[in-house]
Amino acid sequence: MSSIPKEIQDLSDLLSSLPGIGPKLSNRLALYLAVNGKSLALNLSHTLSEIISKVKTCEICGNVSLESVCDICKDTSRDRSTILVVEDSLDLFNIEASNIYRGLYHVLNGVISPINGVGPSDINISSLLKRIKEDEVKEVILALNPNVEGDSTSLYLKDQIENLDPNITITKLAKGIPAGSDLEFASTQTIVDSVKSRKQF
Amino acid sequence: MSSIPKEIQDLSDLLSSLPGIGPKLSNRLALYLAVNGKSLALNLSHTLSEIISKVKTCEICGNVSLESVCDICKDTSRDRSTILVVEDSLDLFNIEASNIYRGLYHVLNGVISPINGVGPSDINISSLLKRIKEDEVKEVILALNPNVEGDSTSLYLKDQIENLDPNITITKLAKGIPAGSDLEFASTQTIVDSVKSRKQF
Repeated sequence: MSSIPKEIQDLSDLLSSLPGIGPKLSNRLALYLAVNGKSLALNLSHTLSEIISKVKTCEICGNVSLESVCDICKDTSRDRSTILVVEDSLDLFNIEASNIYRGLYHVLNGVISPINGVGPSDINISSLLKRIKEDEVKEVILALNPNVEGDSTSLYLKDQIENLDPNITITKLAKGIPAGSDLEFASTQTIVDSVKSRKQF
Repeated sequence: MSSIPKEIQDLSDLLSSLPGIGPKLSNRLALYLAVNGKSLALNLSHTLSEIISKVKTCEICGNVSLESVCDICKDTSRDRSTILVVEDSLDLFNIEASNIYRGLYHVLNGVISPINGVGPSDINISSLLKRIKEDEVKEVILALNPNVEGDSTSLYLKDQIENLDPNITITKLAKGIPAGSDLEFASTQTIVDSVKSRKQF
């Protein structure tokens, strides 16, 4: 029986350790890159080595950045009394695209997840507490994903921030029916959230 | 508004040109490689440049290979009178894993697809016709995927092979209900195929 050459299998194994890529897709990608997509493979190889040397995380907020402090932390026109906490930079860019928020951010680069061996010291929490202690922060908005890990990370952060300074306002994003969606397909929990948090019309 | 740094966007754009990777997943992968997965990014960069220099396609059958002729074409114990034609090497490896076939292969590295600008001369067809003309081939098994492009490529190959030598047996894989599946979920076409090709029990 002839099988996939070792070099292609190695590439496939590396690709399958990326989030969202299973073994079937990684085999297909590895073969594509090795046979039909050699120029793409070359570009990818270059771009990856460039990324490794150029991209850092902002030493204040943890956002991806080409410099030691990111554009948002440098921007003096932003409201410096509010910090919005997100799991990763993609969430930050998505909130920025909405233009609804003009304060600062803090990027945890992960969430607390005992099942994956991620504890509070493994993510960007101590620098958040340092900012709250040293800067003039009035409100912290916890904008983690509404799932078990996001919710327990939010609870942990709430405790820590209250211990540090009980006068800081801690908020979290409203839960409810997403705009443009269909009630028919909303989960029971979404219905519960939206009814509980109903507002005067 | 702050947006994704150019370097990460470049990586994301490259990744989204891979088959099976959409813009949302490519953004996530690019950010992951830039922030959490730097050592993975380094490994990927090395492995990709290695693949580019090492992996070739077999000059006889078009299979991926580290040498100019692949292990299967070199294997003198195999039945050299039968050629099984597949779209790509992954299909070949899947058939090899089943241990049902001991003949030779021919890998087209694509299918005829006018909508994607792929004509007969863009895939590995002329070398197949050359093998049929020059070698002692008795049967060609067309094992392309059962979809519009696979079926029309099979029809094209059938015509070409019959023109070349009307005595060659041309077969294609049986269509029907896949083992382990559920009739309830079979498509109408699968039901039609399996009833039409029913066999004495």
